[in-house]
Amino acid sequence: MKFKKNIDSLCVDNLKINALAAITKAKSGHPGIAIDAATILHTLFCYHLKYDPKHPLWVNRDRFILSSGHGSALLYAMLRMLGLISRSDLEKFRSYKSNTPGHPEYGLTPGIEASTGPLGQGIAMAVGMALAESQVNKRFPEFSHYTYVLCGDGDLQEGVAQEALSFAGTNKLNKLIVLYDSNDVQLDSFVKSVNLESPKEKYKAMGFKYILVNENSVKKINKAINKAKYSNIPVFIEIKTIIGEGTKKENSNLIHGQPLTNEEISDLKDILTFKKSDNFEYLDDVKNYYIKNIYAKNGVAYNLWNPSKKLMNFLNNELKINLNDINLNKNDSTRNTTGFVLNNLGNQYENIIAGSADLSSSTKIKGVNGVYAPNNRLGRNILYGVREFAMGAIANGIALHSNFRPIVSTFLTFSNYLIPAIRLAAQMRLKTLFIFSHDSVYAGQDGPTHQPIEQLASLRAMPNLTVLRPADENEVKGAIEYYFNKATNPVVIATTRQNIVSTNVTNKLKFEDGAYYIYHGKNPWTLIATGSELNTFYNIGKKLNISVISASNTNNLESLNYNINKAISFEAASTFGWAKYAKYNIGIDEFGISATEKDIIKHFNLDEISLQKKVEEIIKRN
Amino acid sequence: MKFKKNIDSLCVDNLKINALAAITKAKSGHPGIAIDAATILHTLFCYHLKYDPKHPLWVNRDRFILSSGHGSALLYAMLRMLGLISRSDLEKFRSYKSNTPGHPEYGLTPGIEASTGPLGQGIAMAVGMALAESQVNKRFPEFSHYTYVLCGDGDLQEGVAQEALSFAGTNKLNKLIVLYDSNDVQLDSFVKSVNLESPKEKYKAMGFKYILVNENSVKKINKAINKAKYSNIPVFIEIKTIIGEGTKKENSNLIHGQPLTNEEISDLKDILTFKKSDNFEYLDDVKNYYIKNIYAKNGVAYNLWNPSKKLMNFLNNELKINLNDINLNKNDSTRNTTGFVLNNLGNQYENIIAGSADLSSSTKIKGVNGVYAPNNRLGRNILYGVREFAMGAIANGIALHSNFRPIVSTFLTFSNYLIPAIRLAAQMRLKTLFIFSHDSVYAGQDGPTHQPIEQLASLRAMPNLTVLRPADENEVKGAIEYYFNKATNPVVIATTRQNIVSTNVTNKLKFEDGAYYIYHGKNPWTLIATGSELNTFYNIGKKLNISVISASNTNNLESLNYNINKAISFEAASTFGWAKYAKYNIGIDEFGISATEKDIIKHFNLDEISLQKKVEEIIKRN
Repeated sequence: MKFKKNIDSLCVDNLKINALAAITKAKSGHPGIAIDAATILHTLFCYHLKYDPKHPLWVNRDRFILSSGHGSALLYAMLRMLGLISRSDLEKFRSYKSNTPGHPEYGLTPGIEASTGPLGQGIAMAVGMALAESQVNKRFPEFSHYTYVLCGDGDLQEGVAQEALSFAGTNKLNKLIVLYDSNDVQLDSFVKSVNLESPKEKYKAMGFKYILVNENSVKKINKAINKAKYSNIPVFIEIKTIIGEGTKKENSNLIHGQPLTNEEISDLKDILTFKKSDNFEYLDDVKNYYIKNIYAKNGVAYNLWNPSKKLMNFLNNELKINLNDINLNKNDSTRNTTGFVLNNLGNQYENIIAGSADLSSSTKIKGVNGVYAPNNRLGRNILYGVREFAMGAIANGIALHSNFRPIVSTFLTFSNYLIPAIRLAAQMRLKTLFIFSHDSVYAGQDGPTHQPIEQLASLRAMPNLTVLRPADENEVKGAIEYYFNKATNPVVIATTRQNIVSTNVTNKLKFEDGAYYIYHGKNPWTLIATGSELNTFYNIGKKLNISVISASNTNNLESLNYNINKAISFEAASTFGWAKYAKYNIGIDEFGISATEKDIIKHFNLDEISLQKKVEEIIKRN
Repeated sequence: MKFKKNIDSLCVDNLKINALAAITKAKSGHPGIAIDAATILHTLFCYHLKYDPKHPLWVNRDRFILSSGHGSALLYAMLRMLGLISRSDLEKFRSYKSNTPGHPEYGLTPGIEASTGPLGQGIAMAVGMALAESQVNKRFPEFSHYTYVLCGDGDLQEGVAQEALSFAGTNKLNKLIVLYDSNDVQLDSFVKSVNLESPKEKYKAMGFKYILVNENSVKKINKAINKAKYSNIPVFIEIKTIIGEGTKKENSNLIHGQPLTNEEISDLKDILTFKKSDNFEYLDDVKNYYIKNIYAKNGVAYNLWNPSKKLMNFLNNELKINLNDINLNKNDSTRNTTGFVLNNLGNQYENIIAGSADLSSSTKIKGVNGVYAPNNRLGRNILYGVREFAMGAIANGIALHSNFRPIVSTFLTFSNYLIPAIRLAAQMRLKTLFIFSHDSVYAGQDGPTHQPIEQLASLRAMPNLTVLRPADENEVKGAIEYYFNKATNPVVIATTRQNIVSTNVTNKLKFEDGAYYIYHGKNPWTLIATGSELNTFYNIGKKLNISVISASNTNNLESLNYNINKAISFEAASTFGWAKYAKYNIGIDEFGISATEKDIIKHFNLDEISLQKKVEEIIKRN
């Protein structure tokens, strides 16, 4: 293709000034990146991105993630040029109820592929999308696209980005193209004060093709992307830019997060090709050029695309499951029964991709069809390596991509390592399933670092997240059916390492609706428990003729109409949060100990006899 | 020095068999690393580590961190040889109330420098120790030691390790020596299935001197460590080992976490120099050799050490502070007042090291004496880069090292990124201070990814962690005095981005003791609030003649003897956990929105008039 120098400058400058105008009007935002990355965005969207703005959800589109989410104004300015949002939307940047919030929000604004802002995770989600693409592409060759991610210095300093890039390099995700806006400046200092690494040497060592673009020009960037598309390994393009180029604050951290004044924008326009006094204007020449290059070209691509029926079935499969006929062992650990069911489902549905951060031997979560690898793109068992955080964010990218159900696993105590990814899943309401085994101190001899205490409380405190802790094989079925059939947001299933005792009165369907009675007693008191502790309270309930509720999903607990002042909860974990549902809370509000399960139960007085005594004492006192 | 081949083999084999015996007796543990890393541990402890077993807390000792915490049995076997623990301790590996728990626990076992187990963090804590050493060394040249860390493949895959090593390379921490037990095998697979990077190229690019030891021998390892000691940049020694070497399961993941049978140990002994039938035996020859090499040599070093008075003052300074005389602005944001006080203290005390993950411009937390850098080892402002998790773990390493008070900061919502480091600080009861600014949805236009909701609840659910959320300048003083003068565990201080309204009735000393009344009303109801919300409730309390409690530290709330059934809590965050202290909870149980503070208050109905109405309605209903 030919480059028209003037029109490219006009496009880039139009984009810049629109973005700056939005930031200045909002009195808040990040002008630094809006100026320095405009050329990158224009080159990518105008000459490369397979993206039909008339069909922004076209499944075969290229994906673009703005990992540097604080560059949102620039992306919104581009979306406005694509006609996905309006001038008025752009003018309402960062204001109440607009579709142009401070950082990109998935589901709110057309054209936004992922919520970004918490740094590093955009890169990892892009890796997930590239992995998902390789899976669909291998099955259905008519499905084929690139995944681009724009990131900055801060993004790359994040551990989650390093984990994800290491994973991408190892797995040779060649359709992943990282665009590194390398401007040498970050919020608190120059980059060299906090990072002296050689990106070239580092990312080559990590399995990337490295391309340096030492001039922030359409021509050079274009050439690099063209080259990147034919790589057989993932590509890392470092583009040297100047933060806030052309302003008085260029190449300084003052330009990072401080809006320009209208005068400063005017001064900048003196050296740009965009001269209009209305900084929100979309120039006709630019519009026409975009129509020709983007709308027309991609509209044709869209119309020509002819997906097979099999692909459409794959993409439209609702994955409603029914576990009535699956036989599970009683009294088995819930990690085992959960693993068994999911393995079974994996064999039935190509849409299920499962894996672990190097703990599948312990969590029992393992995808089918072999290990995913460059020579086995159909492998649905993902070896994430000991990279919990990237695992969560990559899974989110897989969930965002198309119609996959990503399932990831580690120990409950290590859910801490990926909590920021769980939060982004919750904000985006993604269908990611997090399985956390070794869900209590009973996990034993590995000791306090491996024993969850406060994790269930932390997860339950998060909005838009459903936390399930099945007590036995019936509730395991309920938890898994809930995720596939009913969930509209991410789900956590906590499973036991140790064998449990099945109560025989648990109920799959009731469990799916939330908390429910497993025993009705005549005593006015109520016992509430979850997971492996349910059976102990069930036994005590029967003996003392007290009603027992299985309450792993606390959402509807209040609707069960028991007397909270005469209720006792029991979970072998922090009591934090339980007071809302029961006046008396039995649990563990300190860290665990390294000992056998038997000794742990004794140490914390959680055996049936001690617990019954405790329950009787509480009742007696009141 | 000369190497006696036979005695070295005997030492290594003695170590191996003792460690394996402990694992087999416990029926739980990790024999793979115990076998393959024995040579490394023997070489390090016998020929290099400056460590007097008679004075294990000698402040000028070399530090050794076992980042691969699952190798605990091997370390315990070494500690037993050093006389720090007994044979009987080793025999009680992983059993109830022993000092040899499943993973090393700081404070429980002499010779354990840090709790490890959650992978990657040991590396980051070692980086913190090396940083701390460089600070003390620059002031007091008589203080000088190396920091060694032993890590495995899993450790290095963790993002926190990558962040920390990137930081160490950039800061040229040349007395940090990383010993990488490179055995090609991890729990779920061979390493090559999850990581194809070239460590040599990668760590060189990251600023390390790379040394390959391609034979797991005392001689080769010794040579490498000798070389490492004279490097002017940090050193990464890759030691090729064979997991479970000499057993039938060698070079396979079966050996990673499965105890050997006694027969398998017997078989292994056939090819080792340790032949005793008692696998817990400490051979006389080995003991004598250790006495000569370790006890004698290091005892001399200890005795010869002659610290200056100034150094001793530095090390023994109790840092008890008094903020009575410091004048703070009223109505200023608590991030500003906190930053002002800490800056002031930083100028007074050399023991204070502060920094941020590239957000000091926003959190207002910045150390004094310039930016820490290779040419400014006295700089106490640490630029951690956008590496939140490593920041937390490095700070823990600094806290573990000697008498520093490490202070780190980021936004409250990003506390998620370092929660595993906060947990380790809490488990070890370290004196790390975490300052989290932008502590509520009021932070505004950056939107939901930047607005904390559930974070306060998550932090409060954690054992051994004190969470303080000062309402104004008096409580800021109280929070900081609490940390310095009273805290025996890590502290979180949450600060506001926005200006607050000082109530003038808050009280520094009362705040330090926990929740306290700021207003006594005649109405039987009680209002409870924290941080920036306190003033609103105070105004309402005065108007309605209702008592008001400032309750940022909830620990002693119950002792205030109010009627929980007639209490209303208010925090502009998740209500999760508040039901324990008040029957009625006002808060935000959904994610935030991108808008101005004014619009956010309106959206969530958190203005004084709406809140007063809500309070009146609740009281009326009951």
